[in-house]
Amino acid sequence: MSTRIDSIDLVEGVCAGQSRAIARMLSRAEAGEAEAAEALDVLYRRAGRAHVVGITGVPGSGKSTLVAKIAAAVLASGRRIGIIAVDPSSPFSGGSILGDRIRMGEVTGDPAVFMRSMATRGALGGLARGTLEAVDILDAAGYDMIVIETVGVGQDEVDVVRAAHTTVVVSAPGLGDDIQAIKAGILEIADVHAVSKGDKPEADRTVTELKVMLGLDLPASGLKRAIPVIKTCAASGAGVAELLAAIDAHREHLVTSGEYESRRQSIRERRMLKAAEQILHDEFERHRQGRMADLLTALGTTLVSPRTAARRLLAHIGMEIGQ
Amino acid sequence: MSTRIDSIDLVEGVCAGQSRAIARMLSRAEAGEAEAAEALDVLYRRAGRAHVVGITGVPGSGKSTLVAKIAAAVLASGRRIGIIAVDPSSPFSGGSILGDRIRMGEVTGDPAVFMRSMATRGALGGLARGTLEAVDILDAAGYDMIVIETVGVGQDEVDVVRAAHTTVVVSAPGLGDDIQAIKAGILEIADVHAVSKGDKPEADRTVTELKVMLGLDLPASGLKRAIPVIKTCAASGAGVAELLAAIDAHREHLVTSGEYESRRQSIRERRMLKAAEQILHDEFERHRQGRMADLLTALGTTLVSPRTAARRLLAHIGMEIGQ
Repeated sequence: MSTRIDSIDLVEGVCAGQSRAIARMLSRAEAGEAEAAEALDVLYRRAGRAHVVGITGVPGSGKSTLVAKIAAAVLASGRRIGIIAVDPSSPFSGGSILGDRIRMGEVTGDPAVFMRSMATRGALGGLARGTLEAVDILDAAGYDMIVIETVGVGQDEVDVVRAAHTTVVVSAPGLGDDIQAIKAGILEIADVHAVSKGDKPEADRTVTELKVMLGLDLPASGLKRAIPVIKTCAASGAGVAELLAAIDAHREHLVTSGEYESRRQSIRERRMLKAAEQILHDEFERHRQGRMADLLTALGTTLVSPRTAARRLLAHIGMEIGQ
Repeated sequence: MSTRIDSIDLVEGVCAGQSRAIARMLSRAEAGEAEAAEALDVLYRRAGRAHVVGITGVPGSGKSTLVAKIAAAVLASGRRIGIIAVDPSSPFSGGSILGDRIRMGEVTGDPAVFMRSMATRGALGGLARGTLEAVDILDAAGYDMIVIETVGVGQDEVDVVRAAHTTVVVSAPGLGDDIQAIKAGILEIADVHAVSKGDKPEADRTVTELKVMLGLDLPASGLKRAIPVIKTCAASGAGVAELLAAIDAHREHLVTSGEYESRRQSIRERRMLKAAEQILHDEFERHRQGRMADLLTALGTTLVSPRTAARRLLAHIGMEIGQ
């Protein structure tokens, strides 16, 4: 009962934009506490106003520094920004880049910036549980823009970027071919390309290469808009305003083209499927010694194939939930 | 009816080790044909004898060249080897490394080497559907060792390597820190470490670094055996015999320690869960316009959260399957 009242207070605190409530709610989401589920459902329904921007790039692409510059530009435009860093190599966890501004934000009542570093799920990478719930929390708390920063190499991280309305892929000039090969997959999910370290002599070549690649892809992919490629330099601040303008323009484009609603719906569907997978895994683990034991024995004799066992597992879980 | 007879013939052909039957069965598994499911279940039950070896490493690590050398060493020991390459950058698809030997193998009746390149699932990476079924097929066809070669950066690829009995992680000396950061996650899944390009002066430093890392990890991880780090050179062939010996020794270790059976069981469970996820996605897509339509509308109004929708989805699917 006290937990329930506590939850209601927390939800109200989040919606009032109180940093302490936001921080506590984020911790509960990250821990995957069962009691947090109801509060998160309420926050999900209160969310939906923020512009969610995924920013991705391999380690060394200068993405974190660029995020800090974008944050400053968002603030300067009179908007509030929330940042969720899921890149283990991001310096944001130390608060070293936005510095006092962020640290102050975390303790005062109504900060213009809220930053949270989410742990990755084990050394194998994979996304922290609760990342998408964290977006809901910051959204319900009234942040105008929410940036999810990821390293973007694993499938789970790609999934998170796909949960964004606008995806920015950051490429650094002069990264080796090996890196580019790894990156190839994430290039095509970009709504906006940023080339970092624009003061390097190779930056213009990287811009050209990206434009050529996008130009070649255009007819086949049936894209409705040209994808901007913006050269930036975090040190001098060059290109940062243009990058923010391109991010804002992409949201405009989504809204006017009607794509915004369809993208939001596909994000919701993907979240539903991910949640279903999570329930599947949780229920399986929960009943491993109990009602799943026979199934596991049958699987072990190889008389039952994984596919047949999977059908039985789904039947078990579905029946139980349906009751 | 003719499809059924065809399937039975195909299964018998695979079990007799006929290349043409193996190739056709692999294509069906890769296409995810519904009619192939029953045949694959039969093959799954006939499989279980092969040593499944996952070999992973980032592009540029020299992994494909090393796999070719290992294959030659396996052949020289009088065993048959199947290779499944799921790395889009692997040269195996062209058959250029093992050359005529492989090409010959693909057309003759009883080849000692069978090689198959599996397409990755779209440019975002992610594993080809049917990779694990391909292992069953080659296993049932009597190959003594089956190598799965992956690039090992995405979660799905890590999952495949986890489906192996023995995992070899290939590290190239002198790859940048950026690459190493990406790789960090896969290092810990290694049963055997191979350092490639052993003729490079930095190779010894890479060997030392890996040994230091493993030494530090030993007490905390409770490992039962020291993980070998083997320097190899594909050009001169140095270290290849030692690497194969280490791979063979790992299987011995699994069998004598009793870990083999527990590892196989955990592979089966993981396959069951993956199969359940696949059914979930397939059923959702199949009923998107039909019985899932109301659920999607409710999700769209945000009156139903993704978590609640996920529970309803599982209930729908479970009830249907359970009938």
